[in-house]
Amino acid sequence: MGRTVGIIGLGLIGGSMAIDLRRRGFAARVIGVEHDPVNASAAGKIGLVDEIVSYEDCVNQADIVVVAVPVGTAVKIVCDILDRYQAAEAKDRIVIDVCSTKEQICQATHYHPCRPQFVSTHPMAGTEYSGPWAAMPNLFDGRACIFADSEESAPKAVKVIEDLYDALNMRPIYMSATQHDVHTAYVSHISHVTSFALALTVLDKERDEKHIFDLASGGFSSTVRLAKSSADMWVPILTQNRENILHVMDTYIEKMQEFRQAMDDFDEDRIRALIEEANRIKKIIR
Amino acid sequence: MGRTVGIIGLGLIGGSMAIDLRRRGFAARVIGVEHDPVNASAAGKIGLVDEIVSYEDCVNQADIVVVAVPVGTAVKIVCDILDRYQAAEAKDRIVIDVCSTKEQICQATHYHPCRPQFVSTHPMAGTEYSGPWAAMPNLFDGRACIFADSEESAPKAVKVIEDLYDALNMRPIYMSATQHDVHTAYVSHISHVTSFALALTVLDKERDEKHIFDLASGGFSSTVRLAKSSADMWVPILTQNRENILHVMDTYIEKMQEFRQAMDDFDEDRIRALIEEANRIKKIIR
Repeated sequence: MGRTVGIIGLGLIGGSMAIDLRRRGFAARVIGVEHDPVNASAAGKIGLVDEIVSYEDCVNQADIVVVAVPVGTAVKIVCDILDRYQAAEAKDRIVIDVCSTKEQICQATHYHPCRPQFVSTHPMAGTEYSGPWAAMPNLFDGRACIFADSEESAPKAVKVIEDLYDALNMRPIYMSATQHDVHTAYVSHISHVTSFALALTVLDKERDEKHIFDLASGGFSSTVRLAKSSADMWVPILTQNRENILHVMDTYIEKMQEFRQAMDDFDEDRIRALIEEANRIKKIIR
Repeated sequence: MGRTVGIIGLGLIGGSMAIDLRRRGFAARVIGVEHDPVNASAAGKIGLVDEIVSYEDCVNQADIVVVAVPVGTAVKIVCDILDRYQAAEAKDRIVIDVCSTKEQICQATHYHPCRPQFVSTHPMAGTEYSGPWAAMPNLFDGRACIFADSEESAPKAVKVIEDLYDALNMRPIYMSATQHDVHTAYVSHISHVTSFALALTVLDKERDEKHIFDLASGGFSSTVRLAKSSADMWVPILTQNRENILHVMDTYIEKMQEFRQAMDDFDEDRIRALIEEANRIKKIIR
């Protein structure tokens, strides 16, 4: 008999995992937990999972539980599941999280007797949309998945979860939870903050100028796209990775002020030098 | 016999216009001027135009000249072409520019006796790439084209240029050069500055952390994409629209600092309120 995967939180990430883990044969059966009744009903209708079950049934029945809820809640749920594994002496079960910040969840579970049964991961994929309606096939294909502090997990459990992400066509990267949080502050979290600030800036202007957005071009849309991201997801991320993000924001504000100064000074050579330095981003993204 | 269109500057915008104006039948013949020999040779090989000609031949032969060079140079070229029209008493010829800032070029030409033969436009389309290799068919389809200070152009000339942009499937929007420069500061120029600053921030970090960019996800790429834009194009835009952009940058830096303060204060309610306010950008972009 094949594996049962239980997914707690049927939003963009949880729902998309449900779709691909089942249709690609990694899971024989996928069960789901969704506390929001509207989302639960939608997930049922869309057919993201074989069955919507209670939290208890999910933890009892699933060989692997994927906790795919915002990071504040995820810490509590993962700890609770490890408690239940301990009480039930369920030594072969595995729980994973898919959160965008790793330090707090890894710290909170560090001393748990069942810590080896927990694998902390961050599949680096997503869109600015959320909820079961945002779930889609192939979301993870070709992207990176970070395994954080994986030396604290049982090698056997890590292997199973490597297979899970292999089924999602992701390439694994291993690092400490601390490193993860520094790196994502730079390549993901700051992008969201700059988009939020950009949206706030133009919305401010819009009060006077009703037609300004007839002009919004492709460049503006792609830069501001992440500002559509949900507060439910991002408040906990920004809070949990607060220190790293504050550090990056300070560097960012410095760079903006350097740019502003060059413009204020009519210093074309300096503006050119800053743009040409920024152009080096080409070596990193296509 | 059909129209001859002359295009000065066979980069992304000029080259893409050449392709579509010819294949959609607006121009019977398209001639081009390109001062950079490498670009000229590439434009010839790609076949962007029927013939690469000298600047003088282009101005003498073309019914419509499109000046598609960076904005600093464009001001000089448009004035020179109007001088030549005056000297030759060539009253049926039209020159247009396609620059991203409009105030200076409209001021510089304001009192020229041949001002009615100049139509100042800004087709709001583009990518972060430049040069003849970046030219592509259908670049302009469905986007907006601004006509600036069009009441200073002869109605007959405006009509011809409306037809030209109609052939490119663009929708015209009419406003003053001053309004244009304020609006584009908000919906285009600031996006570029925030991308440049983001690129500078992460490149700074990269000196210590070689592997940070393995993690660059789709969100980061779309936010930083504009940082690949060329200095040749952007130094003149930022200089010419300096005051408007400085004003927007100040608002932007304020918003970043407001966000930073909320995070520094652990003020989750305030962070949530800022994100939810930023989410209103959904009413503007899809």
